[in-house]
Amino acid sequence: MGIYLDNAATSYPKPNDVAEAVYEFMINNGTTSGRGSYKKAMESDRLVYEARKLIADLCNFDDPKRVIFTSNITESLNLAMYGILEEGDHVITSSLEHNAVWRCLKTLERDKNISITQIPASKEGYTDVSDIRKSIRANTKLIIFTHASNVLGTIQPIREIGEIAKEHNIPFLVDAAQTFGAYPIDIKKYNIDILAFTGHKSLLGPMGTGGLVLNYNGNINPLKSGGTGGDSAYEYQPDYYPNKLETGTLNVSGIVGLRAALKYIKQEGVENIHSKENELVKYALKELTTIPNIEVYGPKDSDKIIGVVSFNIKDKRAEYISFELDSKFNIMVRSGLHCAPNAHDLIGTKEIGAVRIGIGYFNSTDEIQTFIDALKIIAQK
Amino acid sequence: MGIYLDNAATSYPKPNDVAEAVYEFMINNGTTSGRGSYKKAMESDRLVYEARKLIADLCNFDDPKRVIFTSNITESLNLAMYGILEEGDHVITSSLEHNAVWRCLKTLERDKNISITQIPASKEGYTDVSDIRKSIRANTKLIIFTHASNVLGTIQPIREIGEIAKEHNIPFLVDAAQTFGAYPIDIKKYNIDILAFTGHKSLLGPMGTGGLVLNYNGNINPLKSGGTGGDSAYEYQPDYYPNKLETGTLNVSGIVGLRAALKYIKQEGVENIHSKENELVKYALKELTTIPNIEVYGPKDSDKIIGVVSFNIKDKRAEYISFELDSKFNIMVRSGLHCAPNAHDLIGTKEIGAVRIGIGYFNSTDEIQTFIDALKIIAQK
Repeated sequence: MGIYLDNAATSYPKPNDVAEAVYEFMINNGTTSGRGSYKKAMESDRLVYEARKLIADLCNFDDPKRVIFTSNITESLNLAMYGILEEGDHVITSSLEHNAVWRCLKTLERDKNISITQIPASKEGYTDVSDIRKSIRANTKLIIFTHASNVLGTIQPIREIGEIAKEHNIPFLVDAAQTFGAYPIDIKKYNIDILAFTGHKSLLGPMGTGGLVLNYNGNINPLKSGGTGGDSAYEYQPDYYPNKLETGTLNVSGIVGLRAALKYIKQEGVENIHSKENELVKYALKELTTIPNIEVYGPKDSDKIIGVVSFNIKDKRAEYISFELDSKFNIMVRSGLHCAPNAHDLIGTKEIGAVRIGIGYFNSTDEIQTFIDALKIIAQK
Repeated sequence: MGIYLDNAATSYPKPNDVAEAVYEFMINNGTTSGRGSYKKAMESDRLVYEARKLIADLCNFDDPKRVIFTSNITESLNLAMYGILEEGDHVITSSLEHNAVWRCLKTLERDKNISITQIPASKEGYTDVSDIRKSIRANTKLIIFTHASNVLGTIQPIREIGEIAKEHNIPFLVDAAQTFGAYPIDIKKYNIDILAFTGHKSLLGPMGTGGLVLNYNGNINPLKSGGTGGDSAYEYQPDYYPNKLETGTLNVSGIVGLRAALKYIKQEGVENIHSKENELVKYALKELTTIPNIEVYGPKDSDKIIGVVSFNIKDKRAEYISFELDSKFNIMVRSGLHCAPNAHDLIGTKEIGAVRIGIGYFNSTDEIQTFIDALKIIAQK
């Protein structure tokens, strides 16, 4: 089956229960949620509600109705940004954002004349929170930060940023694509107003799932309008959650799989998941330094990063390395820009890209070692 | 397991291969599409491409790259309407639209000052195409019609409308939520510019899938911006399909399930599927007339409708009937407005709703008869 080290793109494998739950639901229930009133449809409703509740619990939030499901975190982030930002608003964001944030902001800059302040980051991806304080303007309407870079792995000082945001009464949107499920998040303690999540990465659920947790009382305009299974004679989206921001048939089978993944995470414990991943990252960082002519990007400290390490090897193209790893050793990694050109700007690799490994909960030290051994061979060719 | 007659909400069961394909993909592949370049990711790419190709084939279209995947047809329709309509534009639509169209248009009317002409329909849901011709204005930028009403079942004269749209060079958007897969659609012969589809109804695939077929060369602005797996240094959505309108990780496991469903439909033949459903509808219509005090809405002619029949029984609330059917007879139907208040306006049931049965390919005459027998008992109570 090979060694899968692309968990930053999507986690694989999933806990066994996830595919089982999807299958079982499709075979034995298969109904929509929030529409029918027959027993099976009520069962769908219950399963979806439980998934909301598990998401809320996982970030210490208390209102499952304010857990909104979307099709992926890109949609979640677009929904939050388009839903909040208006003509001429100012936003503050990091220098590490994924295109899910960056392209959306650039589009809003072009189409709605918003202005963007990018907080500088060091080559290691560190952000100085005092830069954020200095960047706040009267028309700053949103602070958007990734929880951790998907290229450098660097964990951002979310809690400190949350405090500043709260002080200034500016909504704080966190992109937790790379962290939720594998890194403890307390939406209240961190003063996060809106947490954007994806179901299929560190939450270990199926693709086609994502969402927002709304610890936020301001208005968010819906990105889409349509059927919500209720208030059907009303000609606009209803004004209550989750219906206001969810329209059309939900991906119930996907959400049922996510529910199984969330139960698994609850059972394992986020701290344990984090701790295991941290050990693997520590091991990988240590071993990577033994590779000839390697340049490892980011902090090189497992306590400062999530399970993502990017690197290049002198005189070897990133694409060559990933191709060799796959074709000769059956080891799956990613090369390129990872949809995050700004992070590559920081490390000077926007033209050449980098090789990225994404370490997940189901990886083992042996797998990391096999990868290191293969990389040594490729580096010495 | 009960008798499932809510196929207009989502089809159930699916062909066996569908859940199997989802499961198999999640267990044995699980990678994203359009991102990685390792073998398994290329296999995902191939599966997604094949799904696009099968969708294209099913409507006689020749460019799979112009088959766009979305999370559901509500998103598809929003994407098309928001993507095309600009400030002050005029649109023509039917009197039968689902809220996926209607709420979106009302929102655009409120926010972008578009104007809407609703073509009248008879109580049976028939549209007179000459009314469309009369309604065209210089600023008419879109004609949007449902292929068939999700309340009355009435099939709309799509081909004739397509001719008028073509004559006037107005893009023609068809909501095929209730028809694609169970009713032959030829995107070229019908002059459809944009076909909006859902994967989980008559296409027999998983929830979380839908899309657009773009037989259309005009511009469609993306609804969302974000990672597309390529051109990552470019700060906006790329300008080619499908990437322009697809962002973030696709629901690959869902699309793989849809691919299996599409292969099943191809093997069975849409004409055969349609023909079987037509027989079941004919049987249901005949038997429904034997129920005391029933009012059946719509054409009461199986050749004029799809597998949807709505009705009320005098002095019995719709919710009571659906509740009794479920709780006493384990028969699943829907009551209410079915997210399509305008259709209920036509038949005078906007206040009371109606009971709706949605007949699918896997229903049998015996099931219809059991439902009729149960309804007789409820009607005579």
